[in-house]
Amino acid sequence: MNDVGELKQAREIEALLVDYCRYLDTMDLAALGALFSEECTVVYGPDPRLAAQGREALQASLSRMWRWERTAHHLSNVRIWFDGAASARAESAVWAWHLAPNGEEAQVFGIYHDRLEKTGGRWLIWERRMEAHGSSGAFRVPIPPAHRAPPPAGWEPPEGL
Amino acid sequence: MNDVGELKQAREIEALLVDYCRYLDTMDLAALGALFSEECTVVYGPDPRLAAQGREALQASLSRMWRWERTAHHLSNVRIWFDGAASARAESAVWAWHLAPNGEEAQVFGIYHDRLEKTGGRWLIWERRMEAHGSSGAFRVPIPPAHRAPPPAGWEPPEGL
Amino acid sequence: MNDVGELKQAREIEALLVDYCRYLDTMDLAALGALFSEECTVVYGPDPRLAAQGREALQASLSRMWRWERTAHHLSNVRIWFDGAASARAESAVWAWHLAPNGEEAQVFGIYHDRLEKTGGRWLIWERRMEAHGSSGAFRVPIPPAHRAPPPAGWEPPEGL
Repeated sequence: MNDVGELKQAREIEALLVDYCRYLDTMDLAALGALFSEECTVVYGPDPRLAAQGREALQASLSRMWRWERTAHHLSNVRIWFDGAASARAESAVWAWHLAPNGEEAQVFGIYHDRLEKTGGRWLIWERRMEAHGSSGAFRVPIPPAHRAPPPAGWEPPEGL
Repeated sequence: MNDVGELKQAREIEALLVDYCRYLDTMDLAALGALFSEECTVVYGPDPRLAAQGREALQASLSRMWRWERTAHHLSNVRIWFDGAASARAESAVWAWHLAPNGEEAQVFGIYHDRLEKTGGRWLIWERRMEAHGSSGAFRVPIPPAHRAPPPAGWEPPEGL
Repeated sequence: MNDVGELKQAREIEALLVDYCRYLDTMDLAALGALFSEECTVVYGPDPRLAAQGREALQASLSRMWRWERTAHHLSNVRIWFDGAASARAESAVWAWHLAPNGEEAQVFGIYHDRLEKTGGRWLIWERRMEAHGSSGAFRVPIPPAHRAPPPAGWEPPEGL
């Protein structure tokens, strides 16, 4: 790929990752499903109810989001690595706010690891795996922790900061 | 527009949307106003005090933000659709934090729907309408709710998630 | 620089700014340090422990982040201004969430002001200064306040908004 090609493909992929957040907040699960390949693998965590094999299973599984009254997913920190002109890996961060029907709020600080392919002129997510740096409030979904290096042996916290 | 033209115009529009957030947080209302056309329509909600017709009215109206001690507007989820080389529609998400003089905090999870035109070599916002997926804390501004599809009839929440 | 060159350099710089957040959350301080020049100046605030001269000092200083159990840094509002093909200034916003070992949470709404140079084919941060529009929860680090214009004399808050 030349420079323009790569910039253009990156813009298309970013739009796709954004659309996932938009369709999740509007609960347009048909449009959301169309961002994934028919045979996609999507794993939000080890609980079997957090994994889906195939687009239809994903849409069915994400209907669980209706247990929230409202959500707001904010995408940031997008990184894309191309593997040829029609294959890419992406990592992005999501900060999601959730409002429960009882008024409780829940927040998660997630990372998406994606594998994407372009077929028929459209980028699709073939594999998505989620991890999280943490959560806050009433968030109880067991998303696996993202990697974080531990301090070296003997490390002491500075005083007063 | 060719590919390079579209990438370049998209970058200019993204910079404009970011500048709105920057100038709102620094309360540089003159610079903020210059991002909008003279005849702009800006509607944050049905309350007449949340709507402005024209750049000057917008600047006067946004002086209300001084009732906050501090704000922080974070833009994400930017989508741009071109309608020729000098006309575009954009959607973006804003997560805004507000600190009141009494120490109370208020958050809003908003969506901006924009209509932009390029005239005299500069993109300007001609129309901005705001909706919100929700709010938290001491936020009381009546911003209309963003669209969210309801669950199908008979939908039951999954247990334990 | 032509249009493609500028778009390409901007994408490289954005990736660099994102990587800073990624490596801070994973506490990969070697990779984080490699984003800065050997002689970099990094100032998070007037406290001498918040300033570092040179890459090694920066890495040593940022080991303080291990006093948090977890962090999540979300970058947004990126603006880049080029000063030739190998020199740029950038401003970006960061929303960072921190979890303390005692379960307390701390948030900061920061602004990064960066000076970057491209040498040996790689963009590096030569100078980073941080300010903040505010903070929340258990955040106590004395980051200097970002500029915000005061209201004009005689300004009165609107009622009921």
